[in-house]
Amino acid sequence: MIITLKKGSKQKDIKAVTDKIKVFGYKPHISKGKDFTIIGMIGEYAEKYKEAFEAMDTVEHVSEIQKPYKLASREFKKENTIVRISRDIEIGGKRIHVIAGPCAIEDKELMINTAKIVKSAGSTILRGGAYKPRSSPYAFQGLGEKGLEYIKNAGAKIHMPTVSEAMTVEQVGLVSKYCSIVQIGARNVQNYDLLKAAGKQKKPVLLKRGMATTIKELLLSAEYILSQGNYNVILCERGIRTFETATRFTMDLNAVPVLKKLSHLPVVLDPSHGIGIREHVGTMAKACVAAGADGIIIEVHPQPELALSDGPQSLLPDQFKNLMKELDLVAKAVGRELLY
Amino acid sequence: MIITLKKGSKQKDIKAVTDKIKVFGYKPHISKGKDFTIIGMIGEYAEKYKEAFEAMDTVEHVSEIQKPYKLASREFKKENTIVRISRDIEIGGKRIHVIAGPCAIEDKELMINTAKIVKSAGSTILRGGAYKPRSSPYAFQGLGEKGLEYIKNAGAKIHMPTVSEAMTVEQVGLVSKYCSIVQIGARNVQNYDLLKAAGKQKKPVLLKRGMATTIKELLLSAEYILSQGNYNVILCERGIRTFETATRFTMDLNAVPVLKKLSHLPVVLDPSHGIGIREHVGTMAKACVAAGADGIIIEVHPQPELALSDGPQSLLPDQFKNLMKELDLVAKAVGRELLY
Amino acid sequence: MIITLKKGSKQKDIKAVTDKIKVFGYKPHISKGKDFTIIGMIGEYAEKYKEAFEAMDTVEHVSEIQKPYKLASREFKKENTIVRISRDIEIGGKRIHVIAGPCAIEDKELMINTAKIVKSAGSTILRGGAYKPRSSPYAFQGLGEKGLEYIKNAGAKIHMPTVSEAMTVEQVGLVSKYCSIVQIGARNVQNYDLLKAAGKQKKPVLLKRGMATTIKELLLSAEYILSQGNYNVILCERGIRTFETATRFTMDLNAVPVLKKLSHLPVVLDPSHGIGIREHVGTMAKACVAAGADGIIIEVHPQPELALSDGPQSLLPDQFKNLMKELDLVAKAVGRELLY
Amino acid sequence: MIITLKKGSKQKDIKAVTDKIKVFGYKPHISKGKDFTIIGMIGEYAEKYKEAFEAMDTVEHVSEIQKPYKLASREFKKENTIVRISRDIEIGGKRIHVIAGPCAIEDKELMINTAKIVKSAGSTILRGGAYKPRSSPYAFQGLGEKGLEYIKNAGAKIHMPTVSEAMTVEQVGLVSKYCSIVQIGARNVQNYDLLKAAGKQKKPVLLKRGMATTIKELLLSAEYILSQGNYNVILCERGIRTFETATRFTMDLNAVPVLKKLSHLPVVLDPSHGIGIREHVGTMAKACVAAGADGIIIEVHPQPELALSDGPQSLLPDQFKNLMKELDLVAKAVGRELLY
Repeated sequence: MIITLKKGSKQKDIKAVTDKIKVFGYKPHISKGKDFTIIGMIGEYAEKYKEAFEAMDTVEHVSEIQKPYKLASREFKKENTIVRISRDIEIGGKRIHVIAGPCAIEDKELMINTAKIVKSAGSTILRGGAYKPRSSPYAFQGLGEKGLEYIKNAGAKIHMPTVSEAMTVEQVGLVSKYCSIVQIGARNVQNYDLLKAAGKQKKPVLLKRGMATTIKELLLSAEYILSQGNYNVILCERGIRTFETATRFTMDLNAVPVLKKLSHLPVVLDPSHGIGIREHVGTMAKACVAAGADGIIIEVHPQPELALSDGPQSLLPDQFKNLMKELDLVAKAVGRELLY
Repeated sequence: MIITLKKGSKQKDIKAVTDKIKVFGYKPHISKGKDFTIIGMIGEYAEKYKEAFEAMDTVEHVSEIQKPYKLASREFKKENTIVRISRDIEIGGKRIHVIAGPCAIEDKELMINTAKIVKSAGSTILRGGAYKPRSSPYAFQGLGEKGLEYIKNAGAKIHMPTVSEAMTVEQVGLVSKYCSIVQIGARNVQNYDLLKAAGKQKKPVLLKRGMATTIKELLLSAEYILSQGNYNVILCERGIRTFETATRFTMDLNAVPVLKKLSHLPVVLDPSHGIGIREHVGTMAKACVAAGADGIIIEVHPQPELALSDGPQSLLPDQFKNLMKELDLVAKAVGRELLY
Repeated sequence: MIITLKKGSKQKDIKAVTDKIKVFGYKPHISKGKDFTIIGMIGEYAEKYKEAFEAMDTVEHVSEIQKPYKLASREFKKENTIVRISRDIEIGGKRIHVIAGPCAIEDKELMINTAKIVKSAGSTILRGGAYKPRSSPYAFQGLGEKGLEYIKNAGAKIHMPTVSEAMTVEQVGLVSKYCSIVQIGARNVQNYDLLKAAGKQKKPVLLKRGMATTIKELLLSAEYILSQGNYNVILCERGIRTFETATRFTMDLNAVPVLKKLSHLPVVLDPSHGIGIREHVGTMAKACVAAGADGIIIEVHPQPELALSDGPQSLLPDQFKNLMKELDLVAKAVGRELLY
Repeated sequence: MIITLKKGSKQKDIKAVTDKIKVFGYKPHISKGKDFTIIGMIGEYAEKYKEAFEAMDTVEHVSEIQKPYKLASREFKKENTIVRISRDIEIGGKRIHVIAGPCAIEDKELMINTAKIVKSAGSTILRGGAYKPRSSPYAFQGLGEKGLEYIKNAGAKIHMPTVSEAMTVEQVGLVSKYCSIVQIGARNVQNYDLLKAAGKQKKPVLLKRGMATTIKELLLSAEYILSQGNYNVILCERGIRTFETATRFTMDLNAVPVLKKLSHLPVVLDPSHGIGIREHVGTMAKACVAAGADGIIIEVHPQPELALSDGPQSLLPDQFKNLMKELDLVAKAVGRELLY
């Protein structure tokens, strides 16, 4: 970490900083320029003391040179992490997996029917929400544990692993019991106790970036999970909030190469939420594959206009089937594979 | 709610929409223009079905005309809500209250000393974090229940009500037991189970807006608490995330008059987090008072450079004392009062 | 346009609105609901009077149902606009064109050398800035007309059409004289006199979206050019400004399918500016092709570390050559072509 | 400027950087840490070469320690700049000036009437737009030079200095001839030729921040004007673009203390555009005064519902009159004065 003192700093100002560095157990390295004195703070994880130096009135600027996260970083682990979901499905390898299903689990039959549709089109992981984070307390909140039973049942019947969102520590236990992957949603990306709970159970975790979460913060949130001993974390970009209102969110595809450079964790993309307009989901899914996604999440509903949530962005079965073939072509063009 | 059909819509498209309106138990009202057919959906809370109509391929646009929240709205309750904190302290009346204290509770003595400092300067409510939402898992996470004991003890000794943040459902119970006000932090503004838990206990709730939460979403989050029976909700603006990096966040003071127009709930402002730079906190606090704040939150620390979190934005005791006098002058200029 | 009156509006409020609609030469269409009265304003371009109704205290909300732009809209022209650049190059057809060259034109030889490099790799249009919009008055401002001579000379020598930016009305004339395409940069997207000047000359115009320009505003800016009689407008997304600081800008790929739906104009993308980090430009270029781009702009410099501007994002010749082959594969995967 | 090399940098990497520093005429200062080598680049305005070092593959990070602007900085000039507008009016001193008038100049009589209204309420500078930057080419574009005659005439009749916006280099000359202050609007904040033209004439310049302009960029734009010899620049914050749609823009009041710390130039605020909702303009104007504004711009229109632009945010004469008294109270509370 590099601490730049204000112009005209005196010997006692320098001493105050170097003393503090020593108190924290680090080594100072002083470098006097013509106008500015710069002090390096040398040692691992100096970055966590950034604020303590910014709080000093004699300090002009503190800049990080090491990443504030460790286990999530590419420096810590050079090769890509491959997250095994089931015997033959792993995320982060050559194959791109498409995670598909309805936004919310609505009833038992619909879940099985949708599962059959998405599997026959080539999707390998089944999604569906049992606990729904809805901005209005009056909107449909999900079927709860009953929904988890339905998705588990559908997944078992057609041999697909499953993913569903947990919004509380208690739900983490339930989703972990019923499903193959535990999803942490965008609104909970900085719900630290939830992250810790996800890190303490054994199933892989799909961690969605929040609408205003920076790439650095997303990796710090992943670090919360990793630091509890669960190394199977899949990152997910699903659109950030910007000034543009023509689309529901703004997909930040820049984040894909940047995340892959900074971290060894696989990256999955959710164009359904990311653009939020059914007729454009397919186009964005292709862009996601080209950008290097290890997986794509797509909402599919046999009758979107009857869906209890997120209807405007769900694909119809035929749209999805055609899209899968198109995605496969793009995957091959970038040296990956998608359909078998 | 107003549903506009796409140009060239046919009789069967109109029927599909009106049938659906009737299925949901509402009355359709058709209005045919030269190019467009517009269908009103008449009845209370039609807005919660917005997505179901947006999902229809024949629909061009759906616009809300009623608010999606009810209990939080000015239509529901015309007069301002006044939240009683203790026998002689209430937020939302003529007097503006200053909530002050350290960012994190660090030790017993420091808590009492800071309490004495802020009380003698005119602050009426004591703040301090026992559970700290920190973006890094390696940063100081707070003292937990021990911290709640310290703040309760300090508050009792010098007769000040207290506020502290709860990050989990379990912590809601603890904070509610030890403190006068339960704070829900910015990162948890859409943690719906937490909101419901806060709504089920009896103490007033201080609800902070998230960094990317719209005004409408903030009021919907308040609605989660209100709909559980707890009507003592205090809204708090603490800075939103924008492209500007010269300050930690961008304070959205526009939100104050807008919230007061849309809702009857009191609004408190947090310039310490909102600008994040100690020397400018005082200026922004004055702007907050002028903008109509019912309360101001200010971080004060006897030795900010030793603070375990948020040091760069904490005021020194003397700075705080002077600021209180200045705030009082601005309060009087806008027809309010602050010091006694 | 739909005007919703406030709850409890009276007969005289309705009359005030309908009278005003008639004054503007439109027809009102009244629709009384249980709580709200809604008045349609029927006729072409009613949207330009939106503010006049929002200014009325009795009006709750005004919503547009027609687009405020006309010539740029898909309603006005159903088939895609194909912009002819030279005898054998046209943008908006099946072939995707790659526009390449240095950020700034620096000297005559360098321009020719870079031109040869990009042409041999398959680029079909040569770019280079003679007038540089630089945020600092002390940074290199471009060679001016001398630079235009260099790029014209390079283009003529190796038979490539050229594009360069004009920042003033006078420069529009010069760029139009020396180059094949006149570029309007992001910072000037709402410089209306410049847009009009670009609309009055005959060469195609490449219009870049600003860092905070909405899709609607971009199309309105295009409308300024079109309404002067120049129909050869190429839209360009080059990254918008968001809270994320890990990349220079955030590329809004969502904008591509949305623009293509709303407008008939071709859309070109600039991943060099959009991400601003050399090693990630290639990945984003592939995502742009998959998202439906009609063209891609890529900065190439033989020695980026000596470049006078935008060095960090310029590709090296070998990187560019390899990228072109990769882009061609993605283009084919989405039913387009890129290399011959 | 501090250049941090990537981990594991070799002697030749260090040499490449130090050689380049010397080529630019600066002195390198090497500081080797355990993992990282840091090289200081010492000398004035090293910051303008930032990109040249970021372009090097061996460089991890480049951080500025000096400001990239000079004449606009507080380091260059310690005392506040006071801009003299007329014999008895100066901006930047103890008195806060209120600049008021219609958004657009609409006709001669209306201009005089509005001028009388605002002067009698205590406003000291008259505003009105002759050239209007409108996002739609079909909206009212202003009266042009005729409008400048009207505002000059009104100002002369009632002895008020005047301000109007120039959108082109040619208009700078006209506005400079007819008015006391030349305004550069938000959309042109990075129209560098316009800034240079404003810097070459003698009248004071009111420079508005763009919707996505950082504080640093605003000061660099001011530097363009200052570096041409015109030192009478007034900065203006008028709202930035964020995700919030309940208001037209988000006023960034944080920018006021930050600008005043970084620069000696006076700062004026425009709450009419900043919030865009008539009934809330007054509240925000008070917040602006408390935040340290040297001037406030307020749109006033005798009949806002007939205004040709920005009607929804214009105050009625009586509203304005009352507001002026309230602003005066707040001004006094923060040690300033407003009314005489």
